[in-house]
Amino acid sequence: ITSKLPNVGTTIFTRMSQLAAEVGAINLSQGFPDFAAPAALCDAVGRHIAAGHNQYAPMTGLPALREQVAAKVATFYGRAVSADSEVTITPGATEAIFCAIQAVVRSGDEVIVLDPCYDSYEPSVELAGGRCVHVPLALPGFSIDWQRMKDALSPRTRMIILNSPHNPSGALISRAELDQLAELIRGRDIYLVSDEVYEHLVFDGVGHVSVLAHDELYARSFVVSSFGKTYHVTGWKTGYVVAPPLLSAELRKVHQYVNFCGVTPLQWALADFMAAHPEHLAELPAFYQAKRDLFCDLLADSRFTFTRAAGTYFQLVDYSAIRADLDDVAMSEWLTREHGVAAIPVSVFYREAPKDLRLVRFCFAKREETLRQAAEKLCAI
Amino acid sequence: ITSKLPNVGTTIFTRMSQLAAEVGAINLSQGFPDFAAPAALCDAVGRHIAAGHNQYAPMTGLPALREQVAAKVATFYGRAVSADSEVTITPGATEAIFCAIQAVVRSGDEVIVLDPCYDSYEPSVELAGGRCVHVPLALPGFSIDWQRMKDALSPRTRMIILNSPHNPSGALISRAELDQLAELIRGRDIYLVSDEVYEHLVFDGVGHVSVLAHDELYARSFVVSSFGKTYHVTGWKTGYVVAPPLLSAELRKVHQYVNFCGVTPLQWALADFMAAHPEHLAELPAFYQAKRDLFCDLLADSRFTFTRAAGTYFQLVDYSAIRADLDDVAMSEWLTREHGVAAIPVSVFYREAPKDLRLVRFCFAKREETLRQAAEKLCAI
Ligand SMILES: CSCCC(=O)C(=O)O
Ligand SMILES: CSCCC(=O)C(=O)O
Repeated sequence: ITSKLPNVGTTIFTRMSQLAAEVGAINLSQGFPDFAAPAALCDAVGRHIAAGHNQYAPMTGLPALREQVAAKVATFYGRAVSADSEVTITPGATEAIFCAIQAVVRSGDEVIVLDPCYDSYEPSVELAGGRCVHVPLALPGFSIDWQRMKDALSPRTRMIILNSPHNPSGALISRAELDQLAELIRGRDIYLVSDEVYEHLVFDGVGHVSVLAHDELYARSFVVSSFGKTYHVTGWKTGYVVAPPLLSAELRKVHQYVNFCGVTPLQWALADFMAAHPEHLAELPAFYQAKRDLFCDLLADSRFTFTRAAGTYFQLVDYSAIRADLDDVAMSEWLTREHGVAAIPVSVFYREAPKDLRLVRFCFAKREETLRQAAEKLCAI
Repeated sequence: ITSKLPNVGTTIFTRMSQLAAEVGAINLSQGFPDFAAPAALCDAVGRHIAAGHNQYAPMTGLPALREQVAAKVATFYGRAVSADSEVTITPGATEAIFCAIQAVVRSGDEVIVLDPCYDSYEPSVELAGGRCVHVPLALPGFSIDWQRMKDALSPRTRMIILNSPHNPSGALISRAELDQLAELIRGRDIYLVSDEVYEHLVFDGVGHVSVLAHDELYARSFVVSSFGKTYHVTGWKTGYVVAPPLLSAELRKVHQYVNFCGVTPLQWALADFMAAHPEHLAELPAFYQAKRDLFCDLLADSRFTFTRAAGTYFQLVDYSAIRADLDDVAMSEWLTREHGVAAIPVSVFYREAPKDLRLVRFCFAKREETLRQAAEKLCAI
């Protein structure tokens, strides 16, 4: 068999988590919490399973959960979306992104991705017969480089994939950037996927700028989010897409045959929990900001240099002062094997990484104790 | 936006379930049980959630669950498969089928499907850029028509999709048919998807003929199954694929980016339950055969005619003696609205249904009481 994805290996997230387990390192590589999910959320699953909520959910998602999403969108972004025709529950944000791409991209289409970017975008575009055009974000702040963006546009450009808060950098897109993007693509047949899975992990009182709050862009967008990131349950693989009715209809056609529906008892539990605990969302930024600050305060005593992440549960650090001789893949392995802390290299998020990139990513979605132990090891280097 | 799937509407399963709910009919349309899943299985989910098994599972699936699948394959089909390199857990059998198709089918490829067939096959092939060639099964027994099969083969044939036990007819493929297929495609670059989600619902002591028991065919096959069907939890959306290592590797590349991984606590619970309750699989044929026989014995007093299903939880019935004037779509609606029992028309499983088809499908995965109530209504027509 000739591979349709010849360049694809095992993701860096799987490889680093495996290596961490193998050598007994503290795993700050793959992004997931090491603390408990809210007890009320966990209990709700058992209750719904016992109540017999174990058969197919509606293809578009449980109405109660779609309504919670619509309510949340109204509260946070001031947009009234229809739970019926604009919200779709998916088995994870990865599937949401895959389906949005499949719904729009055809053979020969170009999709602009902003490097560094999440590793699922490009294979998903390729499976749809499209081609990714990689536009590097401007360093050091990982902001959009408008000249390169303009140069990348072509008559074949069919989609642009945005990601804010940005994995791996934690950078945030601004309202001004959204306006500039809207102007740039006005009148062109271009759709957006806005990957906003870290929407509730934005720090320092800044607030997340969602495409949902931008009328002109929303009209051509699939906005993707994740219950896993927001409720500390990445292994529940439940996410959603908000998109205007016509785009939602096309997305659902694909989703209907890729997977059909999400997991019923988890959807019930999430709907219950969202209704009963709106404070969870309000408290989440402070909860994660405390973790970021603890980790960064401790790392201040290390030889790593960094700017605090504005969002996400990831912190980039520059290791030039420690091992400038190592590229970031080698550095991540060295950190894991020799110093007991697993990290993710940033170059793997690029098609063509800057040659002098000396950045690795740590996940700080961890208990205080884990962060202290990791920081101690990192400060000893 | 121009639709990539212009012919796709809402699935018949969703539409009939909705109609049933709307008019208060007994829902024998969409296939799912109306009885409880095993208590030990349900309890295990809560236990694993409480134990904190809520983060990403390995991309290929939880090792403990893959090992249970491998053990089951050895017991039932006498094949030693590697849990590591030949078993992949997926979020449902639908996604498994989608990924297998995406892993193999390219633009311009032809895929042979045997009509009537499940509605996800064709859109999945189309999204991969391929084209379905529809070969109708021979009536009345829904067996393979070898002349038509031969005629359908072309140099562009890249895949054949089998489904046994067969939805909607309940027909079973025989060892002789597998042998004949092996001979037909020997030396050709053709892969199989074998949709065996009803593998444990085979009646009258016949036993399921799995592609897993056929060395020559297995070497080029993706064998798909479903925990949802086997453990009465269709809403848990957990399935699996067994395929030789090279095919599994290609499937996993796709799965890694379509969804990444299945739901962690459900995988733990299924692994525990399979280990502790092997009798579940042994008892399942008798459990469902009793339902089939109850339903069919009661329907003997109706004006429907039928041959008992050999497998699956579906029973086809011919309604010519009742309303030969109605096509099966109209008949299904009439049954739902006027007689309070929802059914699925069989013609929707065809690209081009036989003009004189007068068959509808009932799902008998229901409590005795439900089946009795439905039969009473159907006998009164
Ligand atoms: C699906 S594994 C990757 C998790 C993640 O989003 C990350 O670590 O960046
Ligand atoms: C995913 S809804 C369809 C369920 C089913 O397999 C059927 O009713 O045929």
